[in-house]
Amino acid sequence: MKKIIAVCGSNAGDKNLNKEVLEIAERVGELIAEKGGILICGGLGGIMEAVAKGAKKKGGITVGILPYDKSKANKYIDIPLGTNLGFYRNYVIVNSADVIIGICGRWGTLSEISIAIAVAKPVILISTSKGISELFSKEEILEYFEEKPYIVNSPEEAVELAFKIKEINQN
Amino acid sequence: MKKIIAVCGSNAGDKNLNKEVLEIAERVGELIAEKGGILICGGLGGIMEAVAKGAKKKGGITVGILPYDKSKANKYIDIPLGTNLGFYRNYVIVNSADVIIGICGRWGTLSEISIAIAVAKPVILISTSKGISELFSKEEILEYFEEKPYIVNSPEEAVELAFKIKEINQN
Amino acid sequence: MKKIIAVCGSNAGDKNLNKEVLEIAERVGELIAEKGGILICGGLGGIMEAVAKGAKKKGGITVGILPYDKSKANKYIDIPLGTNLGFYRNYVIVNSADVIIGICGRWGTLSEISIAIAVAKPVILISTSKGISELFSKEEILEYFEEKPYIVNSPEEAVELAFKIKEINQN
Amino acid sequence: MKKIIAVCGSNAGDKNLNKEVLEIAERVGELIAEKGGILICGGLGGIMEAVAKGAKKKGGITVGILPYDKSKANKYIDIPLGTNLGFYRNYVIVNSADVIIGICGRWGTLSEISIAIAVAKPVILISTSKGISELFSKEEILEYFEEKPYIVNSPEEAVELAFKIKEINQN
Repeated sequence: MKKIIAVCGSNAGDKNLNKEVLEIAERVGELIAEKGGILICGGLGGIMEAVAKGAKKKGGITVGILPYDKSKANKYIDIPLGTNLGFYRNYVIVNSADVIIGICGRWGTLSEISIAIAVAKPVILISTSKGISELFSKEEILEYFEEKPYIVNSPEEAVELAFKIKEINQN
Repeated sequence: MKKIIAVCGSNAGDKNLNKEVLEIAERVGELIAEKGGILICGGLGGIMEAVAKGAKKKGGITVGILPYDKSKANKYIDIPLGTNLGFYRNYVIVNSADVIIGICGRWGTLSEISIAIAVAKPVILISTSKGISELFSKEEILEYFEEKPYIVNSPEEAVELAFKIKEINQN
Repeated sequence: MKKIIAVCGSNAGDKNLNKEVLEIAERVGELIAEKGGILICGGLGGIMEAVAKGAKKKGGITVGILPYDKSKANKYIDIPLGTNLGFYRNYVIVNSADVIIGICGRWGTLSEISIAIAVAKPVILISTSKGISELFSKEEILEYFEEKPYIVNSPEEAVELAFKIKEINQN
Repeated sequence: MKKIIAVCGSNAGDKNLNKEVLEIAERVGELIAEKGGILICGGLGGIMEAVAKGAKKKGGITVGILPYDKSKANKYIDIPLGTNLGFYRNYVIVNSADVIIGICGRWGTLSEISIAIAVAKPVILISTSKGISELFSKEEILEYFEEKPYIVNSPEEAVELAFKIKEINQN
């Protein structure tokens, strides 16, 4: 069974989304596709578009779990699911994934990372991607929590780790 | 954008699932794939397995929206999403589809058909497939309702109609 | 622990909602309150308003599970919960109740009745209240299904039965 | 219409839940009840139990939105709703509230705070209550975000502010 990897991160409009951060996302998408994983994401802009673009460059499969209307999906999404769940769709993304990679991100991404750790899904944050992924890579933050995300420093490390983490049983 | 077609019907265990009914489902899957549609279903057994089997025979893409654990997906599902939503996942299937085809079915299928019509998604029932799809093809039942499903008598009619119905706007 | 009873039925606009049918709903609300139950419903108009009105007449507690905005709640709802779940909120109503009473109803109500029976919640239909509650009281319909709703002919029978059905374990 | 105030915080088992933190929660519950608000929470132990206990001391109304089985509700919950939504129920709590007060908390609470801010619900954190409510009161954390929670230092400030914030329109 193919690995399903969710990538969570900022929608378009986040001022942290500079060229460097978007390239991290695109590279993550490429690597997921090269290793034969299925990419799942929120289907909109920003990180979601960059990661899907990367995956399609390498012939991967991209699934977008949209809040409402599937016509809002970015053009790199193969399978746009218009759930009509609004922000509740964040949980569908998290629950449907074997592992979650966080890139940049604001409050919406933080809700995904948080619920993922709360339900014991492995979470990998790329510390160099700004936003909450940078914030939650800091030791002084993580000491507030018993369960912690994995912290990596590059797309390569992130995807390699994602494929190494043993698939969790319950999902 | 590819048409997303949900097929809803009985899980394994329904005594109506004879060879003839399962062949209807398999044929629907074949036709969806041949016409380039994406099949979405509940990912389990019975009708869900037969329709996915048909779609894979013809090289189609199959998405399974599972109630809990994706390991329960039948072997013809390309993209198994383990939503952890339980029966709420029925609504995700309905909302994510452009059109819903009903084959056979019991209470669970009826919940999908009902909510689909309530939210103005087009529903097509194959009257020859037993269960609630047969029941809700009867004139004396349909007169109880203002909005009605489309009634067809074969897989060919069902899939042809599914691709002809104009994509609805809101999803 | 107080019994939580969901009443599901047509929203305002259903032409079946004549004086007689609304009186059935109002009477059901009165009886639930008199017996100390908590009424849960969809919080909008029609049957939902009539049943809540009845419950408040007798000093009961009324909970409305609204699709979006709680400001849409009818004036007899004590606790309006604006879930932002849209029609998915139908499932929250069903899952949160010990027992479901159906009065009149169209496709939306049928989705609630169907999913309730699918998840093994007891369902009681008042056969004299028109709509799908009348339809699904017919023997020739029920023979299509293995699991069946309870059929009663009056508000008194409905509420008496609702309080007699042993609370189910899983919820 | 009565104000609906959600209190989100750690379940039993969090080692931060000392006597002082639980007293903050209980005091918040008392104050919500005294001012005529309806308390909504996750219905389980820890902060959820302490805040409901406080509310009942002062004759308030308490609603518990449970993940699965309503029999798991703490004894101070008047209206236990067993949603069968699992952790998705966190979003129902957030969406159904006019305002959210955070007390202590771990990843689960952080998911609630995050989604609340993402959907523009006002969030008030009590900085003296440890856990993520303390963490997200820090200036060096908040500078990572454009939208910010309100930070207060006592139950009295929290509840006063909760009743002063103008009810938001969309819910």
